[in-house]
Amino acid sequence: MTGIRRLAEALNVSIGTVSRALNGKPDVSEETRKRVMEAAAAMGYVPNQAGRSLRKGTTGVVGFMMQSGSQITGEGDVFFMSVFDGVQAVLARHQLDLVVLLCSSEEDPDAYLQRVVARGFVDALIISATKRHDHRIDYLAERKIPFIALGRSLTDVGHPWLDLDFEGMARTGVDRLVAKGHRRIGAFAPIDDTNLGFVFIDSYREALERHGIAFDPDLIFRSFPNDRGGHEIGERIAAMPPDRRPTGFILTNEMLTVGLYRGLYDCGIRPGADFAIIGRHSTNSQYLNPKLTCFYLSLRDLGIELAESLLATMPGYAEHYPLGVVRRVVPLELIEGDSDQPLSNPPV
Amino acid sequence: MTGIRRLAEALNVSIGTVSRALNGKPDVSEETRKRVMEAAAAMGYVPNQAGRSLRKGTTGVVGFMMQSGSQITGEGDVFFMSVFDGVQAVLARHQLDLVVLLCSSEEDPDAYLQRVVARGFVDALIISATKRHDHRIDYLAERKIPFIALGRSLTDVGHPWLDLDFEGMARTGVDRLVAKGHRRIGAFAPIDDTNLGFVFIDSYREALERHGIAFDPDLIFRSFPNDRGGHEIGERIAAMPPDRRPTGFILTNEMLTVGLYRGLYDCGIRPGADFAIIGRHSTNSQYLNPKLTCFYLSLRDLGIELAESLLATMPGYAEHYPLGVVRRVVPLELIEGDSDQPLSNPPV
Repeated sequence: MTGIRRLAEALNVSIGTVSRALNGKPDVSEETRKRVMEAAAAMGYVPNQAGRSLRKGTTGVVGFMMQSGSQITGEGDVFFMSVFDGVQAVLARHQLDLVVLLCSSEEDPDAYLQRVVARGFVDALIISATKRHDHRIDYLAERKIPFIALGRSLTDVGHPWLDLDFEGMARTGVDRLVAKGHRRIGAFAPIDDTNLGFVFIDSYREALERHGIAFDPDLIFRSFPNDRGGHEIGERIAAMPPDRRPTGFILTNEMLTVGLYRGLYDCGIRPGADFAIIGRHSTNSQYLNPKLTCFYLSLRDLGIELAESLLATMPGYAEHYPLGVVRRVVPLELIEGDSDQPLSNPPV
Repeated sequence: MTGIRRLAEALNVSIGTVSRALNGKPDVSEETRKRVMEAAAAMGYVPNQAGRSLRKGTTGVVGFMMQSGSQITGEGDVFFMSVFDGVQAVLARHQLDLVVLLCSSEEDPDAYLQRVVARGFVDALIISATKRHDHRIDYLAERKIPFIALGRSLTDVGHPWLDLDFEGMARTGVDRLVAKGHRRIGAFAPIDDTNLGFVFIDSYREALERHGIAFDPDLIFRSFPNDRGGHEIGERIAAMPPDRRPTGFILTNEMLTVGLYRGLYDCGIRPGADFAIIGRHSTNSQYLNPKLTCFYLSLRDLGIELAESLLATMPGYAEHYPLGVVRRVVPLELIEGDSDQPLSNPPV
């Protein structure tokens, strides 16, 4: 007896229903789909993939390309795992598998992507860490491989993308610190040509100028997006002449916050008392003392939207997700903490 | 001109040398190999994968299967990313790519693995989170798919594995806390049938009994391996009658430590002062106050050994790694901190 027939008998539904449920067709109730998927998993039922691939010309695999390497994620990742969770929840509806494609920071992302595409085991791709100009976007578009970018880029082929609202973080962060009396406001930027750095710094500069504060390049602190980078920024701040130092700081990367707190403490500067910080929410940051004022978004929801927006562009799935080409900036919510107190020790 | 010929001309070496370097043959110096790889990446050179696959019957992809889902890694992962870094460093020598296969915690790992194998895009697998009895091991052995397990299991087909020294952590942890006057020593164990829980608890029990201390099942605290789990353990400890509470604790999972500290603090118990903790090193834990006494190993080195031990069992690679079938318990180093001070507030 074939697996699909056995499943239908066990569940007392038709073979057609099982097939439609397994193939993610819309005319199956969520409850039935769930029962079929669970029973299939329990029975270890594997659709004949080779047959499916030949018929559909697909592999059933979606790749998520992210950068790895000790300078990027070597000390742990607190962002992507939650995003993956959301992506997986959507792909599971269609029996698609998510594989994570780790591009080492020592490797050229363009060459890596070309190799992955040549290996031919992914139907579609999610790319992240988009650069100011990103050749991967041209490459995938030319080859007509469905993809979505997590992050904007000046390279624009009319492709779908989602990005965090770096403009909003810059604006809200600057407005908030200025309202609390700060005039020398520092900011983090990535060390490379990741697009988000440009977007953030442009908006930060505009927000400052709106308050009549001149942009000072010495207040932009670049580092790798990890804990050690945060610690070094703390030390660099402490080493500046007191009248040149920032009195407040905006961080858009969650990996730096714990290190920045520690770096400042180690140099005798107390976050929240001597120095104001607005950062990004993460599991780590929520245990900081004083409590971090931070920008929050649900990373799982971001993953869900990424996957649904990708499927919306893929033949065979688009009908379930009539979203068009999604190009959206996702807003973040400010959670008030105690780390961005008013300026108490004005510089000499 | 073919890519390989262009590479050879650019580097002024023979086509054979380029080919041997790209294919990870041993008769090419490390320096030449590096030059070739860099030039290949810079030129965006992609070997004709379809041709390679047909000739070699391989895909050039190694899969690393890990569990995902918000209860496992949804709040960030501080272990696997560093391991991947080491695995990748080895695979890059042979132009093999690492893909991470995320098995959702809601899915049956056996069914998931069968599906991945059926999709046919990995040459070899690294599996993790091995269970007491693990069907994946039988399955891969039957299908003659090269694999290595990160974690031991009672299911033994003579396959290669690496595992952390949970026995050593139990023994060193108990001996150290007993020497500091503790008799009621709590321990963390996973909530499911992951093998490491059994190994650790057996050794913990033996170590206690060697000191004439009876095993008390109430001192085993089970939870999901995440921050929230650690926080809940802290609350559970605080809710126990003072004379039934543990006075010290051993944690073998790095994801729980920050939560446990916070949970205890929130209930008025001060880690390091009222309560002794020995934990696992991680980026997060190194910023704890008081400094955590913890077990450390290089996760990158663990990844390197995993990959080399896997390649040692694969045709075409084994000759470069004459290691036989590696089955090794990897020791950890104790780093002294201030979190496991002597018992200062003996229970009433």
